Amino acid sequence: MITPLQRNKTIGILGGGQLGRMLAMAAARLGLRTHIYAPAGDNPAFAVADFHTEGPFDNQAALKKFANACDVVTYEWENVPVGTCDVIDEITPVRPNANVLRISQDRIAEKTFISGLAIPVPDFHPVGSLAELEQAISHLGRPAVLKTRRFGYDGKGQTRILHDTALAEAWAAIGEQPAILEAFIPFEREVSVICSRALDGAIACFDMPENVHENGILRSSTVPARMKPRTAVLAREIATTLLESLNYVGTMGVELFLVSKGRTESLVLNEIAPRVHNSGHWTEAACHVSQFEQHIRAIAGWPLGHTGRHSDCVMENLLGDEIFACADLAKLPGAVVHDYGKAESREGRKMGHITRLKLRK
Amino acid sequence: MITPLQRNKTIGILGGGQLGRMLAMAAARLGLRTHIYAPAGDNPAFAVADFHTEGPFDNQAALKKFANACDVVTYEWENVPVGTCDVIDEITPVRPNANVLRISQDRIAEKTFISGLAIPVPDFHPVGSLAELEQAISHLGRPAVLKTRRFGYDGKGQTRILHDTALAEAWAAIGEQPAILEAFIPFEREVSVICSRALDGAIACFDMPENVHENGILRSSTVPARMKPRTAVLAREIATTLLESLNYVGTMGVELFLVSKGRTESLVLNEIAPRVHNSGHWTEAACHVSQFEQHIRAIAGWPLGHTGRHSDCVMENLLGDEIFACADLAKLPGAVVHDYGKAESREGRKMGHITRLKLRK
Repeated sequence: MITPLQRNKTIGILGGGQLGRMLAMAAARLGLRTHIYAPAGDNPAFAVADFHTEGPFDNQAALKKFANACDVVTYEWENVPVGTCDVIDEITPVRPNANVLRISQDRIAEKTFISGLAIPVPDFHPVGSLAELEQAISHLGRPAVLKTRRFGYDGKGQTRILHDTALAEAWAAIGEQPAILEAFIPFEREVSVICSRALDGAIACFDMPENVHENGILRSSTVPARMKPRTAVLAREIATTLLESLNYVGTMGVELFLVSKGRTESLVLNEIAPRVHNSGHWTEAACHVSQFEQHIRAIAGWPLGHTGRHSDCVMENLLGDEIFACADLAKLPGAVVHDYGKAESREGRKMGHITRLKLRK
Repeated sequence: MITPLQRNKTIGILGGGQLGRMLAMAAARLGLRTHIYAPAGDNPAFAVADFHTEGPFDNQAALKKFANACDVVTYEWENVPVGTCDVIDEITPVRPNANVLRISQDRIAEKTFISGLAIPVPDFHPVGSLAELEQAISHLGRPAVLKTRRFGYDGKGQTRILHDTALAEAWAAIGEQPAILEAFIPFEREVSVICSRALDGAIACFDMPENVHENGILRSSTVPARMKPRTAVLAREIATTLLESLNYVGTMGVELFLVSKGRTESLVLNEIAPRVHNSGHWTEAACHVSQFEQHIRAIAGWPLGHTGRHSDCVMENLLGDEIFACADLAKLPGAVVHDYGKAESREGRKMGHITRLKLRK
């Protein structure tokens, strides 16, 4: 029997960005307090949290103090050092568990683990040198995608190898770091599953969005995604397998390539994000319970919420100076605007998003 | 031409209760900062605001400092002293304007103003002594309702005068204070209009809830209210007249008695609340834009949002220890729970609410 975390107990969140901010507001609505731990910088989550600690992720004394002040700890960033979570977990449970981070922080560990679950992933080869890159290309052919093993996000740390790309240039482009070469998947479209697993093992998935990226950054998510009902069932099965194999607690984003061959659709896993996910931001506007609240419910031992959608919608990210259009966009009927309150707008920086709901009669 | 308040500008809020808390979260989602000013006590709004000042409403130096730190100031409590707003307004605009408070804080001024607009109100008489009460009863008859002129809320400061009520007891019950005697309205049901007026004069009303009170405290709001379409039009006309006559900017709650005579419905105004209103809490769960965001938009010079409702619903207040059922209630499909994070639960205290959405296919 699981006892739900009681009101006014404190949830620790590692990372102070927009995801932490939205998690903190979801926790507040459930009567739970939040304590954000994040390195110095622009941390928009601080403003809406009950408490915050500014400190590096390797300050053991500060981490222990933080852990002692929290009843459960989670993270909003997949690159939080595993060691940080290990220090905290000795004092206060970390959810999702640190092993999830260990796997998802290394693209080779991730793809090896996932393919071991019989979930399709792109063919891949580890690459540690230019010579290994040449060898890997001879196996996988072109086009292919070269990615750093670690610390990639929003298209950073990856480059495409097309028919005329010089391998030395590609190797230089990613900084000659330990890498992975992945076969290019000729996908019809990109979709994702935003799924959650509760402390008691219950699982719930939101309806799937169809995602459009530009320069590696998510531009829009449209719900529902165009796909055969059977494909949606398959996607949920993949999500369920992952959540259970990882003994995951919380909300996770699973990015998938949808591949069409004639009338057959299949799915290939691109990557997992062990946290709430940009392609799930529309849930705050179109669902009874958002992905943020679902995450808080899960890690707090609460029951998961109903994932039903009251409206179809399109979520668009507002990058850089696009954020200044918020007050204007807010005029549109059915527009739900969200500004993360970041101090400075920079080109390509995720500053906010707008969800355009299809109005119902 | 009105320039909307820009991102990261600061909205001051007088009062630190649940309404301030929900306003602060709505502002945060729009990228606006909040600064709460409230006297010492349990101020759940502090936790989700960027800044807060704890101080009495008559500390002029603190008020001036607060005003200088804000770009616009609003209030979440109708009993903020008018003088407090006057001090602030010399430095920073207060919206809604202080004159609204001046009227709504005195039941006689309020009813006189409203009946001057040809909006029906219950017959009333000022009462300053037991002798005046006796005289007023001889005019209005029984049953009637005796209310203090000022500082009433949640059924406090009022008592019913039934056929056998001793007038001296009624006079004692309200503390022998300046009062108003109102004729009892034999209403079919209580309804309310949650309406907003933008800085440019645009007006928007949410669909009307039907409200049930117990011991003077709101228990539930059900949307939509049962009424003839013509009655809803009339209610909106009343709201529009009030907003315009008061040169109101922000969201207001207008409580109405719906009276049925045969097949004819009419409306009698009970009272106005110059702020977001408990009977509008369901908007956060059932509408694209909540009453809280609508208020922030209005006072910030933003356009008002679409007031459409995606789901029918029932909002129920969670009073006192009912709040401890939150995690359990959260299991229900379509349940949106909200805990205000108040430190202590006391009998009859508004601790949170739940909105039960009617799920759509």
